Amino acid sequence: MDEALDALVRGPAAGYADLGFARVDTHRGLRTGDPEVVFAAGKTPAQTVALFHRLRASGNRPAFATRASADVVEAVRAAFPGAAYTDESGTCVAVGEPPATRGLVRVVAAGTSDAAVAGEAAFTARLFGAEVERIDDVGVAGLHRLLAVHAELDSADCLVVVAGMEGALPSVVAGLVSVPVLAVPTSVGYGASFGGLSALLAMLNSCAPGVAVCNIDNGFGAGVFAARVARAARERPTRTPH
Amino acid sequence: MDEALDALVRGPAAGYADLGFARVDTHRGLRTGDPEVVFAAGKTPAQTVALFHRLRASGNRPAFATRASADVVEAVRAAFPGAAYTDESGTCVAVGEPPATRGLVRVVAAGTSDAAVAGEAAFTARLFGAEVERIDDVGVAGLHRLLAVHAELDSADCLVVVAGMEGALPSVVAGLVSVPVLAVPTSVGYGASFGGLSALLAMLNSCAPGVAVCNIDNGFGAGVFAARVARAARERPTRTPH
Amino acid sequence: MDEALDALVRGPAAGYADLGFARVDTHRGLRTGDPEVVFAAGKTPAQTVALFHRLRASGNRPAFATRASADVVEAVRAAFPGAAYTDESGTCVAVGEPPATRGLVRVVAAGTSDAAVAGEAAFTARLFGAEVERIDDVGVAGLHRLLAVHAELDSADCLVVVAGMEGALPSVVAGLVSVPVLAVPTSVGYGASFGGLSALLAMLNSCAPGVAVCNIDNGFGAGVFAARVARAARERPTRTPH
Amino acid sequence: MDEALDALVRGPAAGYADLGFARVDTHRGLRTGDPEVVFAAGKTPAQTVALFHRLRASGNRPAFATRASADVVEAVRAAFPGAAYTDESGTCVAVGEPPATRGLVRVVAAGTSDAAVAGEAAFTARLFGAEVERIDDVGVAGLHRLLAVHAELDSADCLVVVAGMEGALPSVVAGLVSVPVLAVPTSVGYGASFGGLSALLAMLNSCAPGVAVCNIDNGFGAGVFAARVARAARERPTRTPH
Amino acid sequence: MDEALDALVRGPAAGYADLGFARVDTHRGLRTGDPEVVFAAGKTPAQTVALFHRLRASGNRPAFATRASADVVEAVRAAFPGAAYTDESGTCVAVGEPPATRGLVRVVAAGTSDAAVAGEAAFTARLFGAEVERIDDVGVAGLHRLLAVHAELDSADCLVVVAGMEGALPSVVAGLVSVPVLAVPTSVGYGASFGGLSALLAMLNSCAPGVAVCNIDNGFGAGVFAARVARAARERPTRTPH
Amino acid sequence: MDEALDALVRGPAAGYADLGFARVDTHRGLRTGDPEVVFAAGKTPAQTVALFHRLRASGNRPAFATRASADVVEAVRAAFPGAAYTDESGTCVAVGEPPATRGLVRVVAAGTSDAAVAGEAAFTARLFGAEVERIDDVGVAGLHRLLAVHAELDSADCLVVVAGMEGALPSVVAGLVSVPVLAVPTSVGYGASFGGLSALLAMLNSCAPGVAVCNIDNGFGAGVFAARVARAARERPTRTPH
Amino acid sequence: MDEALDALVRGPAAGYADLGFARVDTHRGLRTGDPEVVFAAGKTPAQTVALFHRLRASGNRPAFATRASADVVEAVRAAFPGAAYTDESGTCVAVGEPPATRGLVRVVAAGTSDAAVAGEAAFTARLFGAEVERIDDVGVAGLHRLLAVHAELDSADCLVVVAGMEGALPSVVAGLVSVPVLAVPTSVGYGASFGGLSALLAMLNSCAPGVAVCNIDNGFGAGVFAARVARAARERPTRTPH
Amino acid sequence: MDEALDALVRGPAAGYADLGFARVDTHRGLRTGDPEVVFAAGKTPAQTVALFHRLRASGNRPAFATRASADVVEAVRAAFPGAAYTDESGTCVAVGEPPATRGLVRVVAAGTSDAAVAGEAAFTARLFGAEVERIDDVGVAGLHRLLAVHAELDSADCLVVVAGMEGALPSVVAGLVSVPVLAVPTSVGYGASFGGLSALLAMLNSCAPGVAVCNIDNGFGAGVFAARVARAARERPTRTPH
Repeated sequence: MDEALDALVRGPAAGYADLGFARVDTHRGLRTGDPEVVFAAGKTPAQTVALFHRLRASGNRPAFATRASADVVEAVRAAFPGAAYTDESGTCVAVGEPPATRGLVRVVAAGTSDAAVAGEAAFTARLFGAEVERIDDVGVAGLHRLLAVHAELDSADCLVVVAGMEGALPSVVAGLVSVPVLAVPTSVGYGASFGGLSALLAMLNSCAPGVAVCNIDNGFGAGVFAARVARAARERPTRTPH
Repeated sequence: MDEALDALVRGPAAGYADLGFARVDTHRGLRTGDPEVVFAAGKTPAQTVALFHRLRASGNRPAFATRASADVVEAVRAAFPGAAYTDESGTCVAVGEPPATRGLVRVVAAGTSDAAVAGEAAFTARLFGAEVERIDDVGVAGLHRLLAVHAELDSADCLVVVAGMEGALPSVVAGLVSVPVLAVPTSVGYGASFGGLSALLAMLNSCAPGVAVCNIDNGFGAGVFAARVARAARERPTRTPH
Repeated sequence: MDEALDALVRGPAAGYADLGFARVDTHRGLRTGDPEVVFAAGKTPAQTVALFHRLRASGNRPAFATRASADVVEAVRAAFPGAAYTDESGTCVAVGEPPATRGLVRVVAAGTSDAAVAGEAAFTARLFGAEVERIDDVGVAGLHRLLAVHAELDSADCLVVVAGMEGALPSVVAGLVSVPVLAVPTSVGYGASFGGLSALLAMLNSCAPGVAVCNIDNGFGAGVFAARVARAARERPTRTPH
Repeated sequence: MDEALDALVRGPAAGYADLGFARVDTHRGLRTGDPEVVFAAGKTPAQTVALFHRLRASGNRPAFATRASADVVEAVRAAFPGAAYTDESGTCVAVGEPPATRGLVRVVAAGTSDAAVAGEAAFTARLFGAEVERIDDVGVAGLHRLLAVHAELDSADCLVVVAGMEGALPSVVAGLVSVPVLAVPTSVGYGASFGGLSALLAMLNSCAPGVAVCNIDNGFGAGVFAARVARAARERPTRTPH
Repeated sequence: MDEALDALVRGPAAGYADLGFARVDTHRGLRTGDPEVVFAAGKTPAQTVALFHRLRASGNRPAFATRASADVVEAVRAAFPGAAYTDESGTCVAVGEPPATRGLVRVVAAGTSDAAVAGEAAFTARLFGAEVERIDDVGVAGLHRLLAVHAELDSADCLVVVAGMEGALPSVVAGLVSVPVLAVPTSVGYGASFGGLSALLAMLNSCAPGVAVCNIDNGFGAGVFAARVARAARERPTRTPH
Repeated sequence: MDEALDALVRGPAAGYADLGFARVDTHRGLRTGDPEVVFAAGKTPAQTVALFHRLRASGNRPAFATRASADVVEAVRAAFPGAAYTDESGTCVAVGEPPATRGLVRVVAAGTSDAAVAGEAAFTARLFGAEVERIDDVGVAGLHRLLAVHAELDSADCLVVVAGMEGALPSVVAGLVSVPVLAVPTSVGYGASFGGLSALLAMLNSCAPGVAVCNIDNGFGAGVFAARVARAARERPTRTPH
Repeated sequence: MDEALDALVRGPAAGYADLGFARVDTHRGLRTGDPEVVFAAGKTPAQTVALFHRLRASGNRPAFATRASADVVEAVRAAFPGAAYTDESGTCVAVGEPPATRGLVRVVAAGTSDAAVAGEAAFTARLFGAEVERIDDVGVAGLHRLLAVHAELDSADCLVVVAGMEGALPSVVAGLVSVPVLAVPTSVGYGASFGGLSALLAMLNSCAPGVAVCNIDNGFGAGVFAARVARAARERPTRTPH
Repeated sequence: MDEALDALVRGPAAGYADLGFARVDTHRGLRTGDPEVVFAAGKTPAQTVALFHRLRASGNRPAFATRASADVVEAVRAAFPGAAYTDESGTCVAVGEPPATRGLVRVVAAGTSDAAVAGEAAFTARLFGAEVERIDDVGVAGLHRLLAVHAELDSADCLVVVAGMEGALPSVVAGLVSVPVLAVPTSVGYGASFGGLSALLAMLNSCAPGVAVCNIDNGFGAGVFAARVARAARERPTRTPH
């Protein structure tokens, strides 16, 4: 049995700490190369802070909470004064130095209403070790705005494309580039958008190959996936500027 | 009480014929300006032929059946030798001279698999009195194909845009033109397209204003609507060719 | 390459202004003939006001926001004192002189509870250049109320028919007229109306041809579409009053 | 304990016969006043015939099978030569003299494609003891056809209104009459009718009070309910013919 | 044309009053024999009070509002001091003497949580002219409670059976009686009850014939329907007490 | 007729007490061996307290309310000072000595966000007579945490496995053990979890045999079922500790 | 690390055989105490037979295939002449001596159309080591049939209750007994049963505690679960016959 | 304007060929680096062969059709004797030499019934330039089979994980590795799997980060995406064999 597998099974001894209300993966870095993330929905500020202390004590990767309420973010800020920082939506909070970057993720958003989800994706991808750039407000109803950034799209190692309503942007983008496109439907819309279902189904049915999909509003998951792709990518030959 | 209303109510006397299994609107032309259409699903060949005879006897507008099975089409052809004609999907059949045309409907299809629905829309719009032109296979994954026909799109009086899968084409088209865009979702796709639901929801949630939607695979309904818009439209100033 | 297409692609240079959080289409009028509309859901009052200033600066078409919260409407009113006006639902706000009208849109509502959506449609159609008249509270359960306005229905260039619950009104109206009928389902209802789904499905399945459908509660989209149809329509011969 | 209740509990001794594959309610007439009905879906011809023999042996009410395949109908016909009869859809089969009638049920169908379900309802209501009359092909898209039979509608003791597609007919009918309206959605339609869901939801959300709904294509259930209402109704004063 | 039909069409002259925001059916009694009901959802207290005044002015049937907010109820009470009364859920309010009763409706509720809907049904049925009795808390999980009232169930002219969760009660009741059973699903439940969908589907699929279904939580609709059935029923022979 | 059945039918005399708003099963212990449980959703504090008094008066089994609001819990605590106790979610409240235990239920939760539902299950199972132990935070994304408790899983008489999001834990657990696995989906998640639907469907489709499923968030139902299984189980031979 | 866990991880060496197209668990008996079952849907007859040979070679527990097509059953019969046997639906096939029984499972079916699923459950429970008895055709519409077998229901160690349509039977049964009730919805029904969804939702929302649910038509899963419960149950004191 | 963009717009001249029924992207390689793929659903054998000829004529990348019927595959084989090859499901067919490989994709399938979709993914990834290896039949119900291949999983550049039913495998795999996991739900299952919906929702809600999802049964899309990730990945340091 190889050592990694052995470590996996022997986990109870060394791989996590039991806090009573949660089991913290202190060796997760070993397993996946990424920091442990706290899903803060349903957790109290005190529980979240306790988890952050335990995670910070077991290494120097950043601790990172998603779906945090304002109370939780406030508590983390208070517990780690000056060291905590958040994304623009204010629902992600992290403590600790982000890793050095490798590879480039571009986060593309259809409308300004999609900015919160795009922000979560960008924040996450950066924390997971990728360089990140954003392109906002290039929805398909104004195609010339998208075409104007065409060359930039194809020069990333992975694209995260965020859209609500009819969710058409990933299909159009994927027809223009040869890099992997990670589509994130948002709950932006009303009526028959059914909380993002319309965008989700559209993205799953993209006629352009090379599109994979995350859960509705799941900027976090997209950020993790995209960072993994970008970090592992070869250096790209320098492109002539356009 | 004005006369039109009076005629409406007195309909039983003059406005339809009772065939036992159906009541045929013989004066429908008076009411809507369009030929009566037979929804042939669930009707026998004999019933459909009887309806055609009755409709043809009461005027000289074409009689027209949709959702016709092969048997029904065959029976109509046999009953009206040389006078019946069908669309390319073979599920629409008509007898009688189509009216003179006024206005232009362009039917735009995303993929070759959408051709049957596009054909039904084109066939119908022509029978309802509009000139019709088609543009096929201009899906959003190959945007340059669509941009190449950009000027043609904006010179129609009404566009019918047909797409399956993610149903993105109407949004992209509506962002390029200022004419009304009638979107028709098709059941082309698989898995989470759920028989056309993905395209339907996408089109209903179009971020581009000026899009209205028909039922899944309902080329007929789109053709009627588009013809009414086109027939009523003013002459357009001649455009410089491009 | 024709000039319109060239302008489309060269858009980045001249077609929009980058405000950081949004890209404003300043030349959209060129492309679609309509004013740019701000989808205000998820935008702050400050962002919306900034967009209005930029849009007003680039031409003299009205700027127009939909799905605006009370805060946003208030901020726009404060920024453009005396120049801003709203629809009866208070969720649409515009600044600037509406264009001259051409053609007639009639907005028909089934019940008084549908008035907000009907109001949004009427407000929008007027801003997009059509004359607008309204007919309220003519639901199918009191058919004589609808029959009483029968002749008026058929004298418009385009009808917008708004209904919640079972959404039957567009089918009944479409059987009475020969003009295009744009159906707008509303979320009025409870239980198995599922937020407007029942009316939406009913309208998509209308047995009367000549019906196209907008998203649930999407009075705005209906107004744009209807105005485009009406503006392009030929003068109609004067009808005898009834 | 009253006698009826006692009989209910003591049922095992006298109330049914155990055929091995089914328990036949031989005293059901006592309990509900109606004949036992065999739900033939999933039953073999032999099983159905056995059930019919047992039911006929225990009394002289008709035996009646619904959702019968052609094989089952054939087998019943063969087993009861000359005594079996079916509805027009050929999926209901009965043996035995129908009861004398009391009260009037009118079965109203929107389109000719709804005739099979309307036929099942009519067949059932007759077998459950009501007089039955039918009105076909009076869909809402041709309102004058419906208005022409307006007075007949209100002179029944119970109406069964059958419609597919948008299912609007029951709402319109219920607005015209003061008798109970039993709505039956059919699976007639395509695309977003989702097998009758659109009509079902529409009928459940009828804006006209006095509408109750049966399962999709459930003509049988509607027939039973309507017959019970009609049989129990008082004589109505004779109406002047119209 | 018979007189009733003529009156229907001539409605505009005499059949309703146009209040600007609503068209009030002042002659509805003529058409359906029932009082006009105001669907108060989305109406202001002032609008509702105005409708009540108009309705009261045109005859002496009670005016009746459903889905009324506390504000609306308060306003009606203030406008008609001493004359307004409500159901136990406080969402229905009426003004005016209820009609004399004829026939008996029994309203049966599965659990105490279903009482609000059962109350609306009972209140409505009484206002529409039926005698009403209630049986509460006889859910199928405690079958002896239901069997104890078995004889009462069968002695009504129409049963309204109200249940949430799995919605099994109407099936069990319909197996015990020979009177029409009107099933009303409620939104009582959680998780996979999906706001009453589970009970609704169960009731539509009842294996016991003689069940018809109303919309989720639609006690009002059930009350109207049941009252119409009961009012029209013949006197029943006195039953021996049990 | 055996005595139990006789008691069942004669229930009205002895089996329940009619409180006006509810019928209390005072003999339910006789029938099912479990305490009566009050579904407190939609009941007032006063009603719930009245039910508790009646239940406590008719025997010495604990009275137990689920889905109780904070008000209801407070009222019960006030009415039974010192005798009432709640679960960790604070939505279950009981009064009276729990029964002696027999058999062991283990409640396993995927994440800390699932703790409220797991707590309800544990609380219920204890009240229904089983010994209960909990294992928290062993989701499938950190498999070593689950493998570390592998032997404990297989030594229970019944497992309750609680998970939200993708609901994968029951399948993995069921592949490791030979005891019955009762899966409880929770509404933990967002976007396409649709309030727990994703976990529910996953659990119903478990590829590992020996899994049965409860309603979303239904810790109570799982606790009852698991306690019944555990109480009836034979003593298990002592396992060697691991 | 305890031995069971060690065996689990070292599985590759000893715990399964790699057939190329499948990995056969030859030591599964060690893990779960049950025979390996082949999910035959999508497997060829040759593949299934190969799996059976491998499973039979590694021990003497029976091999067992579910969801087998007629071709697969035929092939297994031919490969194991005289040793293969099937359930009454003909979709399950097994080879090898069933184990000795312990405990009693009763399989209760609502209608004769549910017999195939009930048969699969019974066949499976027997193969997994429980004694099995069946009670058929005791649907809730004929309650006296169910009450007649009341005492038998409560004397089993586990009940499997199978029903389609409204799926009410498990709720009614669970109110009568104190043993665990495993509910199996079937796809029997039409229209709004949506392939068994109505019964599934009803069972998940059962108002009677002590009900757990399996997938639609999943008699196999129910049989496994019930057998595990029954096998582990204590001897029950003999009941007096009734 | 950069050259790539210019080429995009000038597409009509050089970028595609118009075959009448389709527009073939002959320069698509320039745009995306991948071969053009024909979506063969709804195309005739003759159309597909014509497309293949045109694609083969414009370069030497392989032509590739998905969702091909047996007729289409047969026709392609006949048109390109000896040069056409298919995947194991027989629904993909290609002509032309596959490109040299770079990077490694591992395709992991839960059950043997998922093999067709896994095969399509593997076939596609190879055609799009990645090395491919498969791991079959490692579903979560037999965890030791999965743990046995643990090290192999983490040594790929991208994983495609295919599963039906509850779709739990991607979550478990993603918890074990640090490479991107592309999840493909299959329609394997029955009842409440609703054609793959259960697996799709589960995968979208994976609690393990680093999972992205493709459409149900969309092995093709997964293959394209995974190949793009793998081809772009850096050389990985050699791992010690295990």
